[in-house]
Amino acid sequence: MSLPHELIPTPRFLMGPGPSDVHPRVLRAMATPLIGHLDPQFLVIMDEVKRMLQATFQTTNEMTLAVSATGSAGMETCFVNLLQPGDEALVCVNGVFGNRMADIVGRCGAKLHRVDAPWGSPIDPQQVEDALRECKPKLVALVHAETSTGVLQPLTDISRIVHEAGALLLVDAVTSLGGTDVRVDDWGIDAVFSGTQKCLSAPPGLSPVSFSPRAVAAMDARKTKVQSWYLDMRMVRNYWGEQRTYHHTAPISLMYALHEALRIILTEELEARFARHRRNHELLRDGLEELGFTLVVEPPYRLPMLNTAWIPESLADAPTRRRLLDEYNIEIGAGLGEFAGKVWRIGLMGCSSTENHVHMLLSALKRIMRPT
Amino acid sequence: MSLPHELIPTPRFLMGPGPSDVHPRVLRAMATPLIGHLDPQFLVIMDEVKRMLQATFQTTNEMTLAVSATGSAGMETCFVNLLQPGDEALVCVNGVFGNRMADIVGRCGAKLHRVDAPWGSPIDPQQVEDALRECKPKLVALVHAETSTGVLQPLTDISRIVHEAGALLLVDAVTSLGGTDVRVDDWGIDAVFSGTQKCLSAPPGLSPVSFSPRAVAAMDARKTKVQSWYLDMRMVRNYWGEQRTYHHTAPISLMYALHEALRIILTEELEARFARHRRNHELLRDGLEELGFTLVVEPPYRLPMLNTAWIPESLADAPTRRRLLDEYNIEIGAGLGEFAGKVWRIGLMGCSSTENHVHMLLSALKRIMRPT
Repeated sequence: MSLPHELIPTPRFLMGPGPSDVHPRVLRAMATPLIGHLDPQFLVIMDEVKRMLQATFQTTNEMTLAVSATGSAGMETCFVNLLQPGDEALVCVNGVFGNRMADIVGRCGAKLHRVDAPWGSPIDPQQVEDALRECKPKLVALVHAETSTGVLQPLTDISRIVHEAGALLLVDAVTSLGGTDVRVDDWGIDAVFSGTQKCLSAPPGLSPVSFSPRAVAAMDARKTKVQSWYLDMRMVRNYWGEQRTYHHTAPISLMYALHEALRIILTEELEARFARHRRNHELLRDGLEELGFTLVVEPPYRLPMLNTAWIPESLADAPTRRRLLDEYNIEIGAGLGEFAGKVWRIGLMGCSSTENHVHMLLSALKRIMRPT
Repeated sequence: MSLPHELIPTPRFLMGPGPSDVHPRVLRAMATPLIGHLDPQFLVIMDEVKRMLQATFQTTNEMTLAVSATGSAGMETCFVNLLQPGDEALVCVNGVFGNRMADIVGRCGAKLHRVDAPWGSPIDPQQVEDALRECKPKLVALVHAETSTGVLQPLTDISRIVHEAGALLLVDAVTSLGGTDVRVDDWGIDAVFSGTQKCLSAPPGLSPVSFSPRAVAAMDARKTKVQSWYLDMRMVRNYWGEQRTYHHTAPISLMYALHEALRIILTEELEARFARHRRNHELLRDGLEELGFTLVVEPPYRLPMLNTAWIPESLADAPTRRRLLDEYNIEIGAGLGEFAGKVWRIGLMGCSSTENHVHMLLSALKRIMRPT
């Protein structure tokens, strides 16, 4: 066969729903020569990653680690470890990722109850309270930052309601972690998963997860094996724990990357990082509105790192995104599901959340929309 | 919290059961800035990876791709997509990885039949033939290169027997692919999985898989959803295929790495690569025997890339491996399962299969065993 050429992709500015731009220090870390997954040096790196993930999740949960696959596998990890066939689960759905959770509940052989809200709106705590009068699920799952709609879901009231009903609270923090507050302990989150390629600004391929002691107790009380061998936390935790029992070969280079990305995050400090995400969101919002865009989400529920805007009638969806990519090397995200063709998703995540990114995008859009 | 220091691991020579040494070109490729997983440039990279994987697997199978997790997830992918609850499967077990397959069959809700051979010996085709008189499984699974024992499993006779019985042949080629012949089409393998961190000499985190048209037909005939959302090939293939439907975010940087690793492999050419692995295996074998080691496996069944040797009584297992690591920066593998404390596993995989690696290890062992 004729061999493909070497990789020389044109660099992009990543302003879609992830991956986001990765700091040069993280890229450099990935080029570090590999060591073994049981090398004493690597075990120190794992411990450090765990400690930094705890700080980022704002938790003291002992079972905090990075699953060896992307955020979607982190979602699956939470469900398959907590649900057994015949269990009941309540899933709140207001976008693509709530739907995905509902799909996974079915694959676990569990009984699905669902609460729906319109795309672009949050779940109302009253809906959860009403639903919990009709069923008694083992867990209630919802999405903290719906990447398909741009909605930030308030969690404190729902957490109280869920725990009063004796259920576990399972939260998708793929897009929120590292870009806005995710207070796992303060908010009583029992199982949470994220991804590395959003506001953590590391490459995709790992999924940080954290489980409360209550969630761990639920795993320990299982009568059946977890349906996934790869994601079985009762085995994975023995590799991350003191036993260091071999389970599978950890993705060494991605762990290097996550290690460096977390060092960058904690050096900036969480509060400053969240403030930066808010500032750049506001700058983008003002600029988009000036160009005639309308944001999808009501102000109190807007995600700072994932901005959804209705596409003006004057602009063709795919051709305009293609021009941004081809002429300006700027990637923004298309609408998903109900929002396909109607909405753009503009990410300002991690290293992609800078004034310069906002200026570049707004200026490029201005040139495309108002050619002189 | 006090932040950990930057990553400055002491470089190692990786001569265990994987990961193996990674070529500097592959490390450099990983430091390439990220592009989006739906960027037209990335779709070209995926197509090229697919084409190079087909060449490496020696197959024309359309469904050939890299699963976004390590080799163990590739194993799970094959089983969960082919088995439905109530199906029957025959698993051949002669080491840790056969046992793992048997475990996964149970988690699929399928009925397990098994054929066992002693650790260090291959499965006898007659055993499979006998077993298939007693049951009629949907698939027969076995390990081509048992990383826990160092056994190379001949496949052609068993393939004929399996197909005469109307079953699918599922093969673990994690350790063999890229280091010895894996003729997917010629040998009639219906489902095969591998890992990137062995003889492909890329970092861990991806699992190349390939499915024959017969296996794809079996997936299409399913009545139930695949129990894993993340590994569901009916969705994953739409992202790798022409539709490019978003499923999950591909591990961009690892795909860069695999792309470059495959270019290196196909530039060397498979036959030359296999011959190199054989040559260095023979050099190591001679040297080990000279030092008083006895190899575990009979000559016809020895893996060239994973050499198992009984630890001489004069040597303490863990302390000697630790000396190799601390004083010489050489990693070799401990025994697993039945072989723990009794056997060493010495890998000569991909970029770690060089005369220099063999010389370094033998010389270091000589110094440790015969200090002057």
